[in-house]
Amino acid sequence: MGLKYTETHDVTYYECDINQTVTLEMLISIAVKTSESQSNILNKHQPTIVQDLGLGWVITQYDIEIERLPRQNERIFVTTQADDYNKYFCYRNFWIHDQWGNVLATIQSVFVLMDLTTRKIVAVPQEIIEVYQSKKIKRIRRFEAIEQIAAVTNKKSYDVRFYDIDGNGHVNNAKYMNWLMDVLSFDYLTMYQPSRVRIIFQQEVDYGTVIVSQCEQKDLTSIHQITDQSGNIIYAQAQIDWKKRGEQC
Amino acid sequence: MGLKYTETHDVTYYECDINQTVTLEMLISIAVKTSESQSNILNKHQPTIVQDLGLGWVITQYDIEIERLPRQNERIFVTTQADDYNKYFCYRNFWIHDQWGNVLATIQSVFVLMDLTTRKIVAVPQEIIEVYQSKKIKRIRRFEAIEQIAAVTNKKSYDVRFYDIDGNGHVNNAKYMNWLMDVLSFDYLTMYQPSRVRIIFQQEVDYGTVIVSQCEQKDLTSIHQITDQSGNIIYAQAQIDWKKRGEQC
Repeated sequence: MGLKYTETHDVTYYECDINQTVTLEMLISIAVKTSESQSNILNKHQPTIVQDLGLGWVITQYDIEIERLPRQNERIFVTTQADDYNKYFCYRNFWIHDQWGNVLATIQSVFVLMDLTTRKIVAVPQEIIEVYQSKKIKRIRRFEAIEQIAAVTNKKSYDVRFYDIDGNGHVNNAKYMNWLMDVLSFDYLTMYQPSRVRIIFQQEVDYGTVIVSQCEQKDLTSIHQITDQSGNIIYAQAQIDWKKRGEQC
Repeated sequence: MGLKYTETHDVTYYECDINQTVTLEMLISIAVKTSESQSNILNKHQPTIVQDLGLGWVITQYDIEIERLPRQNERIFVTTQADDYNKYFCYRNFWIHDQWGNVLATIQSVFVLMDLTTRKIVAVPQEIIEVYQSKKIKRIRRFEAIEQIAAVTNKKSYDVRFYDIDGNGHVNNAKYMNWLMDVLSFDYLTMYQPSRVRIIFQQEVDYGTVIVSQCEQKDLTSIHQITDQSGNIIYAQAQIDWKKRGEQC
């Protein structure tokens, strides 16, 4: 288990939706901000070590358990830890606590290093990973499988916009969350909230692409897929468990 | 001139675009957060005074001058001041400074109070405005007129999404900024940056609406309009002056 690092964050109104709780896009963004801060601190003598090797960090998977969504104007504490890693995959955990020490959310994630020229995943270089003091393991961690869509119940298409793109020229992971959620109805998104969100990012999305977000809603689970217009390229798959707003898990 | 109030803000990566500078959506959002904080502090003995009267603050106009856009990870200082007001219009100013005291941006804005049931503007009640210690004036401040589009050069339509909606059930003002800018090309938005942005919000946009964003680009100015699909309802008009990135005004 590697080093931990905690930051406080004051939730702004513009990180929240009509329910006055944080959006999933912002929950992920706030978590990743903490891991970037940790990396900046640990690499303060070599701030560009990842870029100098022509690499970039890419997140391929999240498993998010949500006890309660942080509220507008709430002060939260975001802790991150570079857990163990193997040849290609780095496992990183996040915990979000409230001011009374209650866990609001836990996030398991998988980070990989991509060669920015070839866009291929590379083996984790020792000189990049060592600052986190995490343990090298042999095994590949298995995450619970995401179900397949049997029958599409909701479907919308979206143009990728200028502001969906991040510093590496591709759609930022967090932006996928809005496409996933926006296919659900206004009433559903105000009556229910996610209690668990699992997402696998399979393919990068470029500026100018039209993506199709579709899902199958059944009881308190929705199964999602983000594809190109032909349906041949799967950009992401996700499964969300829901509960009524105001209920504890 | 009413009371001033300043907050620090650390610019996050997710408030920035591919240029690693703050987006206009976030510039406005960060400014408005400071005015909300001021209101919360000044009304701490009567936190729901506006809601209790069945009213809500609505912003109808911005005139933003940008010397330099705040950068990713930069600490900025956001100052707001309730300037003077007349029967219906409250004039509020914002200044954004960097850590060396340089002005990065100034924003003039017009706030009105809307009856949340009738959706009509009401005269500013004395009990709401008095905490800001701003001066009542007779005259209506004239802002420089926005030009009309002579010939449309860029045009796109957008579905209003769930996450465009704020706590009062309508599209948040800041979201209009993305529709305005996204009609411009990727190359333009990475080579140029706004030096002045003027926008008038004429009509609220509801969830489920399809809006059309169009503009006329000429030299270093773009003139914008956001309408419904028929073009009969004008939701907003804007004019943006541009300069090459990296140049001072």
